[in-house]
Formats: sequence, C-alpha cells, structure tokens
Amino acid sequence: MVDILHKVGIRGANPDQVYQALTTLPGLSGWWTTNTTGDVRVGGVIEFRFGPGGIDMKVRELDPGKHVLWEVVAGPAEWIGTTVSFDLRHEGDWTLVYFKHAGWAEPVEFMHHCSTKWGSFLLSLKSLLETGKGRPSPDDIKLDSWELDKAA
Amino acid sequence: MVDILHKVGIRGANPDQVYQALTTLPGLSGWWTTNTTGDVRVGGVIEFRFGPGGIDMKVRELDPGKHVLWEVVAGPAEWIGTTVSFDLRHEGDWTLVYFKHAGWAEPVEFMHHCSTKWGSFLLSLKSLLETGKGRPSPDDIKLDSWELDKAA
Repeated sequence: MVDILHKVGIRGANPDQVYQALTTLPGLSGWWTTNTTGDVRVGGVIEFRFGPGGIDMKVRELDPGKHVLWEVVAGPAEWIGTTVSFDLRHEGDWTLVYFKHAGWAEPVEFMHHCSTKWGSFLLSLKSLLETGKGRPSPDDIKLDSWELDKAA
Repeated sequence: MVDILHKVGIRGANPDQVYQALTTLPGLSGWWTTNTTGDVRVGGVIEFRFGPGGIDMKVRELDPGKHVLWEVVAGPAEWIGTTVSFDLRHEGDWTLVYFKHAGWAEPVEFMHHCSTKWGSFLLSLKSLLETGKGRPSPDDIKLDSWELDKAA
C-alpha cells in the first residue's frame, strides 16, 4: 500500500473556516470541482463530477475544525476503497492542512498524476480561503491531453 | 522506504526543451530556485539555495531528452541519500514528466510539505516552458510561516 501525502498552510484562516471548505457543498465547489452534490453528513455520499466521470466519496469521519475522512465508493478502479483524509492544525496565523490519500495498491502511473492534481487542488483550497477565489474543475490546470479531452 | 511521485504534462514543448530546463543552470534557475550554481555534468554537484539553506545534488545519470537522476549529498537530514529523478515521454503535442523523490525513510511531516512543494515547482516548470515564465524561489508559493521566515 502506498499513499499520496501533502501539506498546505493557509494564512489568515482559522481551522473552522477551512473545515467549512471541506465539509459543505459551497466550500467543496469552490476549490475541487464546481459540480459537487450529495449528502455531506457522516454516512452520506458526496458526488464529485469532472466532465463525464467522477468520484463518489462516503463521509466516514467528521471532527469539526480538526478532521475529515472520506472513503471512495465509486470512481476510477484504482481509487475504489482508498481513503482521503484532511487533518487540521492551528499554528499562529495559519491553519495547516495535512492531506493523505491512502491505500493505493501500487504506485502506478495514474498515482503520479493524482498526486500532482491533489497538490494543485490543495493550492486551490489555499487560494480560495486566502483570496476568496479558488481554481476548481473545470478551470483547473490540465496536466495532459487526456484531461483536456475529458474536459472538452 | 516511501517515495514522492508526481507527473506533469507540458504542452507545446518537446523532450529536448524540457531536458534543457532540467540540466542547465539557466533552466533550473527558471523554475526551482534562482540561486542555482555548480557543475551540471554527470559526477558534478549542483547547489540549490533557498534563503540561507539549500540542497546539493550530485548528478548521477543523464540520458538526453529522456532521463535525469540526482542524489542528495547535502541538505535537510531527511533528504540525505534520497534520489530525485525525472523521466520524460513524448506524447503528441505534450512532453510528460514523471518525477520521483525516492528513498524517504519514513512518511514524516516534512515529507507532506516537500510533496506539495515539488508539485508546485513542477507546475512552475510547466509554466516556464509553456509561457516563458516560471515561479522559482524566492517567488514560490509559501506553504507555512517557517517558509515565510526563512525567505525573509
């Protein structure tokens, strides 16, 4: 099993503000994909859509201002059963976000792609909270022709 | 041992152009850190500086237009002995860059940080080749107060 790890610090935002961006439909729509629907409560399923395809996340754990855990229940084959977590820490004027997409079976080519995409979307989350404007799909940075075609 | 993996596709650049950006001082200065000096040949050491500190990379392998491998010989304790590689693949109008920072002893907090920083710098490499302008240190996106203080 291999994991994708990231960290971003968000300046001038407290953990509750970051938590809102991770646990509400308007928040998630502001940095990951504008096409986000579903039930954000524990046990609910959130549907994230990117062009024709997408990812369904079951909300497994929520600890306000501190922790979010999702399990992938639909999406790319390599993602099924993996988990995505966000752990928040307050540090002075910053909220630090520790991200983990855990449980990949193998470090496949697609994992390289997803690692960079997650980094890019976490920078979008940072930008949303610091400037009021994120860069969610479909306006995200495209990393290859497959992504461009998918978005077309 | 755990690895940081990334991929970026660069549109409108061929592998030779990307290879130049990875193996020359002006190229490296354009996307990673403006303070880059040293000997870029196999067996040489390239010194990358970020504020007061930095990283020294020994060039281990070079295959023009295809592959670059460095070994960290000085820098943060967690980095010593790890390797950094770039593998290039031409695909239509794109050059795909497969990145690996391999050989971390543990998935420590600093690895989360470095994973996001590498993603951000690889997007800087993409921007440099696609637009003529990267975002190397000291103008890189700062992820926490430690980075801000270090750069001050």
